[in-house]
Amino acid sequence: MLSTCLAKLRERSPLVHSITNFVTVNDCANLLLACGARPIMASDPLEVAEITAAADALNLNIGTLNHLLVPAMLEAGRTANRLGIPVLLDPVGVGASSLRRQTVAQLLQELKLTAIRANASEIRAIARLEQAQPSGAGVDALPCDLVTKEQLGQNIDLAKRLAEKLGCIIILTGPVDIVTDGKRAVCIYNGHPMMSRITGAGCQLSALTAAFLAANPDSPLDAAAAAVCTMGLCGQLAFERMKSGDGNASFRTYLIDAVFCITPEQLQRGADYEIR
Amino acid sequence: MLSTCLAKLRERSPLVHSITNFVTVNDCANLLLACGARPIMASDPLEVAEITAAADALNLNIGTLNHLLVPAMLEAGRTANRLGIPVLLDPVGVGASSLRRQTVAQLLQELKLTAIRANASEIRAIARLEQAQPSGAGVDALPCDLVTKEQLGQNIDLAKRLAEKLGCIIILTGPVDIVTDGKRAVCIYNGHPMMSRITGAGCQLSALTAAFLAANPDSPLDAAAAAVCTMGLCGQLAFERMKSGDGNASFRTYLIDAVFCITPEQLQRGADYEIR
Amino acid sequence: MLSTCLAKLRERSPLVHSITNFVTVNDCANLLLACGARPIMASDPLEVAEITAAADALNLNIGTLNHLLVPAMLEAGRTANRLGIPVLLDPVGVGASSLRRQTVAQLLQELKLTAIRANASEIRAIARLEQAQPSGAGVDALPCDLVTKEQLGQNIDLAKRLAEKLGCIIILTGPVDIVTDGKRAVCIYNGHPMMSRITGAGCQLSALTAAFLAANPDSPLDAAAAAVCTMGLCGQLAFERMKSGDGNASFRTYLIDAVFCITPEQLQRGADYEIR
Repeated sequence: MLSTCLAKLRERSPLVHSITNFVTVNDCANLLLACGARPIMASDPLEVAEITAAADALNLNIGTLNHLLVPAMLEAGRTANRLGIPVLLDPVGVGASSLRRQTVAQLLQELKLTAIRANASEIRAIARLEQAQPSGAGVDALPCDLVTKEQLGQNIDLAKRLAEKLGCIIILTGPVDIVTDGKRAVCIYNGHPMMSRITGAGCQLSALTAAFLAANPDSPLDAAAAAVCTMGLCGQLAFERMKSGDGNASFRTYLIDAVFCITPEQLQRGADYEIR
Repeated sequence: MLSTCLAKLRERSPLVHSITNFVTVNDCANLLLACGARPIMASDPLEVAEITAAADALNLNIGTLNHLLVPAMLEAGRTANRLGIPVLLDPVGVGASSLRRQTVAQLLQELKLTAIRANASEIRAIARLEQAQPSGAGVDALPCDLVTKEQLGQNIDLAKRLAEKLGCIIILTGPVDIVTDGKRAVCIYNGHPMMSRITGAGCQLSALTAAFLAANPDSPLDAAAAAVCTMGLCGQLAFERMKSGDGNASFRTYLIDAVFCITPEQLQRGADYEIR
Repeated sequence: MLSTCLAKLRERSPLVHSITNFVTVNDCANLLLACGARPIMASDPLEVAEITAAADALNLNIGTLNHLLVPAMLEAGRTANRLGIPVLLDPVGVGASSLRRQTVAQLLQELKLTAIRANASEIRAIARLEQAQPSGAGVDALPCDLVTKEQLGQNIDLAKRLAEKLGCIIILTGPVDIVTDGKRAVCIYNGHPMMSRITGAGCQLSALTAAFLAANPDSPLDAAAAAVCTMGLCGQLAFERMKSGDGNASFRTYLIDAVFCITPEQLQRGADYEIR
């Protein structure tokens, strides 16, 4: 099932329009090319509608949010909604500032999202948005996130409730990743701690998920789960390539290389998940 | 001849001012350092004239065009024109939006360009600019571009006509690259398909060409052809280094490494082109 | 002493807020993760105060300065000053334009800086700021900088005077690096010429220094010297890993890898400096 999603991605080569941060944008572009998709980045409000209209998915990422980007994200998002193009939001560090909270609140209100990809801190910040409480700091999840079985259960509940409320797929990533449409939750055990030692593993997963959603429009939950398994498994494969003297910079190269090389068969064999 | 152009580039170490996109800017900077040039990136209208005036070439790239960049490109371009500094334009995805078409039309009208580096879709979009027809989508050439001999002949004609009309060198890149000043056309057979699996191979070639033009002001056609042969040959050398497990991220590293290592002698032996 | 600074950095994992250029931002983020710190990049004036307030250090870099960034740098800097968070300035290419000179003059006037990290050309440009003389071009130091013992002596004097006048640590980098608080000067002989063949070695050192300052608030001179020794030693280790076919792109990977791998014990053994 998941391997079929990857095979379709390779076959269909979707064009993914990203309005994203300038820290990890190069990695996201190379990751999209690695998986078989085609990247286009454009963020001027004067052109985003045209760019989105020609694309197969829209990937919104607030990692280096600037208030000038908000109208572009809204314009692109409305175009995508009108044309039935999937929209993914990566609410990087949404708990870190009022600007980010307000922007995410506005995007949630005005757009129909297909999926949100975030860590536990960010998902909690979104869940709290209505009460306008400040929450968490920094762009990374708290170290305690998702280590125990109890926390896993709580996070599944949180993700399911949010998915149901927002009518979109929630992808909550951490030591265990949770992908849910509000009904079923896929718990994914692929991945490696080294992924948190490079910048942008989350951004790359978001871009990859947008590509999977574009290539598998009829099964968004499977598409999202396949993206998360692919990325996690590639993290494991990348770590296996590490040798003496290698650090996070080599790992970054190996990770994108692994996405380039991975086959549907490898994904089939290596995907490690359960439905909850 | 081409190898002399590379030798002069290594010797003269020109300063190249790029106003470019934020996706591939780091690769372009490292590519310029690899070839022996020195990069400077600056795009605030308040400083571009000073920066260009101190540089040996100006490289304009609209990959993540923002309307705020247009006055900076014009100001830098006018400064370069006044001082006789070569100006290269990379009209990334010019067919993808009105903003890009209008910007390129304005740059063509107000500036004297030394060279344009683009794929076949982009060159066609420029040729069509006067009729204000929308054309093509996305930033990449169509897969059918330049595969047959007939298409090659058509593209040579197109490039020559455009070069003559605009009074600049046209570098049309694809499976076969065409470099022409309107009179002679150099067809270059170097290169490797892996180059289209990384982001920014085109942007890097544009930056490299600007450096070659700066170091060889008296022979711009040779300089541009040397840049294209160098990049293509380095793509071949980079591919030869690929081993099991390597993907596009490793290839990206090998490509810049190859530009760092290539000697004029290697270029002399490996350059594969004919004059048409 | 220096090795203790590195051990504390690994242990404390400070959050470093960078307002920086878009050329080297990805390398800076991965470098910060490599050394054990956590990066956050944010540059919208509407959020920088909140982001800085949650951070352990602020790193300001004008490599691709835009006048829109100036209010953000001032706002973030004032927040850091109010809360006692260390602030580092990297005045990239300050001699290259009026905008850069004016911005650096304003930052020096309105903010209390903990450290400035710059090459000799940039330090001289800062020293000359009061006389509003244009100076130097490009973002790199002149090739003649710091090659002779006499030049070293002159640069130590220059750095000490500037450190005393501005009440901050001056880190003057080149073939020999000088770190001074105006009283003591640490001359550091670590480093490798390959570091000038990649983009952003200076930016990376600035980010690393901000992290060291954050983790060692009571000994800023030692912290800065430890950062410079670490970076230089990692440059040497990275060069030792280079093999046939490798160029500056591989070196870039090896450099960040080396920062990831280096231990306090290795730093203790490899640090090469003297107090002047």
